[in-house]
Amino acid sequence: MINKHYLQLADNYLFADIAHLVQAYKATHAKADVISLGIGDVTQPLVPAVVDALTAAAKEMGAEATFRGYGPERGYTFLREAIVAHDYRRHGIGITADEVFVSDGSKSDTGNFQELLSASCVVAVTDPVYPVYVDSNVMAGRRVVKLPCVAANGFSPAMPDEDVDVIYLCYPNNPTGCVLSRSELHAWVDYALAHEALILYDAAYEAFIQSSDIPHSIYEIPGAERCAVEFRSFSKTAGFTGLRCGYTVVPKALKVRNGRSRHKALSMNSLWLRRQCTKFNGCSYLSQRAAEATYSPEGRAQVRQRIAYYMDNARLIRETLTALGYEVHGGVDAPYLWVRTPGGMASWTFFDLLLHKARVVCTPGAGFGSCGEGYVRLTAFGRREQTMEALERIKGISI
Amino acid sequence: MINKHYLQLADNYLFADIAHLVQAYKATHAKADVISLGIGDVTQPLVPAVVDALTAAAKEMGAEATFRGYGPERGYTFLREAIVAHDYRRHGIGITADEVFVSDGSKSDTGNFQELLSASCVVAVTDPVYPVYVDSNVMAGRRVVKLPCVAANGFSPAMPDEDVDVIYLCYPNNPTGCVLSRSELHAWVDYALAHEALILYDAAYEAFIQSSDIPHSIYEIPGAERCAVEFRSFSKTAGFTGLRCGYTVVPKALKVRNGRSRHKALSMNSLWLRRQCTKFNGCSYLSQRAAEATYSPEGRAQVRQRIAYYMDNARLIRETLTALGYEVHGGVDAPYLWVRTPGGMASWTFFDLLLHKARVVCTPGAGFGSCGEGYVRLTAFGRREQTMEALERIKGISI
Repeated sequence: MINKHYLQLADNYLFADIAHLVQAYKATHAKADVISLGIGDVTQPLVPAVVDALTAAAKEMGAEATFRGYGPERGYTFLREAIVAHDYRRHGIGITADEVFVSDGSKSDTGNFQELLSASCVVAVTDPVYPVYVDSNVMAGRRVVKLPCVAANGFSPAMPDEDVDVIYLCYPNNPTGCVLSRSELHAWVDYALAHEALILYDAAYEAFIQSSDIPHSIYEIPGAERCAVEFRSFSKTAGFTGLRCGYTVVPKALKVRNGRSRHKALSMNSLWLRRQCTKFNGCSYLSQRAAEATYSPEGRAQVRQRIAYYMDNARLIRETLTALGYEVHGGVDAPYLWVRTPGGMASWTFFDLLLHKARVVCTPGAGFGSCGEGYVRLTAFGRREQTMEALERIKGISI
Repeated sequence: MINKHYLQLADNYLFADIAHLVQAYKATHAKADVISLGIGDVTQPLVPAVVDALTAAAKEMGAEATFRGYGPERGYTFLREAIVAHDYRRHGIGITADEVFVSDGSKSDTGNFQELLSASCVVAVTDPVYPVYVDSNVMAGRRVVKLPCVAANGFSPAMPDEDVDVIYLCYPNNPTGCVLSRSELHAWVDYALAHEALILYDAAYEAFIQSSDIPHSIYEIPGAERCAVEFRSFSKTAGFTGLRCGYTVVPKALKVRNGRSRHKALSMNSLWLRRQCTKFNGCSYLSQRAAEATYSPEGRAQVRQRIAYYMDNARLIRETLTALGYEVHGGVDAPYLWVRTPGGMASWTFFDLLLHKARVVCTPGAGFGSCGEGYVRLTAFGRREQTMEALERIKGISI
């Protein structure tokens, strides 16, 4: 009676495991002041433009004349138009509002999108990887192929050496903090078009890109609208992890084969609309107004400040650890830093060492896949003074 | 490559179809003042206690000291404790906070819960039925058995005459507005326990029950904690259709077979936690604070007023249409009224007649299943003056 594929899942959940270990440490070290540079949650409050939008929307909802019930299926037009104007049209990309689906966050969307695909599809993911891509496909019984991202290939995955139907790419990357250059992303689009593969492109960390030559959207690459879905989120961009709002772009040009026939291609946009109409009822009106506010002139300026704050943390971590002799990747165009453990130490061992010697929580790389072994992930989402204190403590550990 | 089960779905979506027909009517009747008693969306604004909670939560989110990022996996304890205290413990039901999962609404949960089950499960639904139960199972390739709810059985379904693994029950019912008596619900629980079937009990309209002897929760029935999941929603109870918040109760005593072995029963609570941790990231903090506010003394009193307002609409519709000679079901313990079409008219024909002759929108019963033919659904969620005006117009149609 049970979906037996659930039994193939790894027993535990990385961040729950970490939370339990930290809890156990705190229980036996009552006064210990533990600093988390582990789970990728933000610490800075919502910007004033967003708080104002939330307050105004709450007031609207309390008056009969301005109350709103169920929203439009794809999300409110005011938000989808703002998304299209600022995230695409401004960059010369021709995505339209009916190709945008507003949701309660990109974890839901990256987890649910695979439902549109046959259980027989072969799925490629990077290793290390955000666990949702793997688990959601394991739950559906699909075979998952790993594309190693290691120092030898500069953490940039090689093309699969077997036929795959779906490829998950996350850039800027979680957990390595690495990015794809335009030519690398171009190669993936060309590969997908040539092999009739679907790219599920998770750009949740797009706002952290600082280098001018790194693509912000896969749709900057010609042909991507025929092979790629893009996921975006307000979670990290504007601190919406507790508010919940993201969006997914499914271009109308994106068709997918119905079985072996090339002639019965189906529109992914229509299929996703059908899925969302059946199993989702929209994102909170307040969250949608809040998301809209991040595109106002004040909202954009305020959000840019938050991003700059976190990226200053990233720079501090990178510079300090590098000076200490650590090998550090990422943290330039992403809020994540991928740090090689000293002396080839196992990542959970280094996690324990950092927790016990520095009272700093990291995320062991092995939790993201076997190629993550030998690394830990640090995040730039801490408060400045805590991040600096954590670095001071790490300085005190001899490696 | 595509999930071929999607191709088995009915082409269109009931409420989208209705919206298009209404739009077409309005386009050719420019001054027509159409009143919708169709789609089940609320019209009354959020109550003051909820608006205050939203405003306070927005303020909290704007200050570093009180900002909140990702919430707990099952939802905030403050909300789950309020749910348990008011919706269960107060009624003598021993549901605990770790059996409650807060979500963005019961449409998502009733749509997603089937993921935990094997594709080979046979699913029973009533006919007429809320389309989500059917479509989410068709998308997964399951066989769906219909249990007719017709005048001859008082719209109360008979037990399936074949083995089924899952039974969806929605009471108070959408669309018929009928309820199950305690003994009828008892019979379903006994049936499920005897046949090792799982009941997915949608109690989204529980707050509208007026009769003192009608069960509000399936857990009022002994043994239900071993065979039933219950879905609840703040959407209709407190006008949260645009805010998004609901919850699902998965008792720890609820085990499900792993294949044929009776000895390898698995905890549905753990499986649902795994699903939600993988594909969902919680409901907005603001919506959770808003939901909590519906349980405060002021909040409860204000919400009760809203329910009374809508149930007065239901009474008006019922009394007026009955006096006009219509056969009317429901509307006593539910916000829905199930009205037999005059002279055996087809439900879409009567829809057209009401739209063109009375400028009133109903929902054709056939849209909810073949047994809905010959009926239309009216809702009590309109504004009072519009509901009264709609009834005046219906008086003007001779049947």
